[in-house]
Amino acid sequence: MTGWVAIVGLGPGRETLVTPEVRDVLAEATDVIGYIPYVDRVAPRDGLTLHPSDNRVELDRATHALSLAQQGARVAVVSSGDPGVFAMASAVFETLESAPQFADVEITVHPGITAMLAAAATAGAPLGHDFCAINLSDNLKPWDMVEHRLRMAARADFAMAFYNPRSKTRPHQFTRALEVLLEECGPDRLITFARAVSTSDEELKTLTLGDATSEMADMRTVVLVGNSATRRVGKYIYTPRSAS
Amino acid sequence: MTGWVAIVGLGPGRETLVTPEVRDVLAEATDVIGYIPYVDRVAPRDGLTLHPSDNRVELDRATHALSLAQQGARVAVVSSGDPGVFAMASAVFETLESAPQFADVEITVHPGITAMLAAAATAGAPLGHDFCAINLSDNLKPWDMVEHRLRMAARADFAMAFYNPRSKTRPHQFTRALEVLLEECGPDRLITFARAVSTSDEELKTLTLGDATSEMADMRTVVLVGNSATRRVGKYIYTPRSAS
Repeated sequence: MTGWVAIVGLGPGRETLVTPEVRDVLAEATDVIGYIPYVDRVAPRDGLTLHPSDNRVELDRATHALSLAQQGARVAVVSSGDPGVFAMASAVFETLESAPQFADVEITVHPGITAMLAAAATAGAPLGHDFCAINLSDNLKPWDMVEHRLRMAARADFAMAFYNPRSKTRPHQFTRALEVLLEECGPDRLITFARAVSTSDEELKTLTLGDATSEMADMRTVVLVGNSATRRVGKYIYTPRSAS
Repeated sequence: MTGWVAIVGLGPGRETLVTPEVRDVLAEATDVIGYIPYVDRVAPRDGLTLHPSDNRVELDRATHALSLAQQGARVAVVSSGDPGVFAMASAVFETLESAPQFADVEITVHPGITAMLAAAATAGAPLGHDFCAINLSDNLKPWDMVEHRLRMAARADFAMAFYNPRSKTRPHQFTRALEVLLEECGPDRLITFARAVSTSDEELKTLTLGDATSEMADMRTVVLVGNSATRRVGKYIYTPRSAS
């Protein structure tokens, strides 16, 4: 039996946002590897072994996946959203780079609906012009770099999407991020807090930067900040296609 | 009958990348409106009227959709990829803003797999760290703004995705974009030309900025530029999760 690793995105939560391609991979897999809440989204069945693991062990998970595949297993590595956006795909390739014994393992990546696009669709079209996506966690990069990117993004007049805005271990950084944005974009800029989009816990709130506070975000929140032209029409938020 | 407008993303091309949610919308629709090649992707059936239209008539299309829905039709407005990324969602909200007679029409947006994420998955994980998406067309913004955004994005050390890099009517601008990127990022930076991803015409080519030429892109190409840490491992391209 020839094994493989397929890195798949389960989308933001709602089952109807999982692509048929990802469903097909899961139907063929012998093993599923991933963070506990994502593995929980895969239905158990005969012949399928689930390997849930805790947060922040991405490289261990990747090594496990490559090693099982080398022994002939068909391994699905699951992420929520899209696996290439702040998720498992990079971790698997990092592992491959440092472990040449896995060079012959077949690896494929299968895209999913990433959180910012689901959040944007629910809000209207806030990412309808040029935009950027920034992971606000400083687990893997210095905080100074985050601030620098926020300033460059503001000066480019990008709409922005922030992943992992706030965690219990670093509650003050998102406060600082909001300060930087307020300085660069002014108090009237629109900001949307989109929590648990497409799940039963979904909550969306749009307000101005001047009224935003860091407690409005948690680790299940994607934060969208408009560009200088982003505005409301009725209950929707949108960014025009043309520049302001 | 209560009408509605559902703005849906058909994904980059492969049928297995269309979400079940979008399939459900298309199954309930009475009318489908969109650019000819996207409407062509919807199977005809009894009770469904297809309204294909030419490029660059986004606002006419949006008005048509809102007007039909107001008369009771269930209208799917189709884009390729994700409808919120350089596609029809913003055009519908722009129209709504200028035509308050449509204020009561129910509008929903249904996300899809946008081209840059499909391209990234095919290449490996080049968007695995902070990144931006820029529409290189200057139909709706001055070219100076495009150049400014390229420079800001390079200085933020974002990975980048470019939509609409080149058209017959403006062949020289992408040449200029490559010059700006070469100046800002140097000749060794990796660039991927991903053409018609997930279709039978799919072609992927990765090389360095120093070797890239503008003829490598056309309007069916999404261009991905790595950040300073993006590299090759085997046949894959990836950007590490941690900053360089």
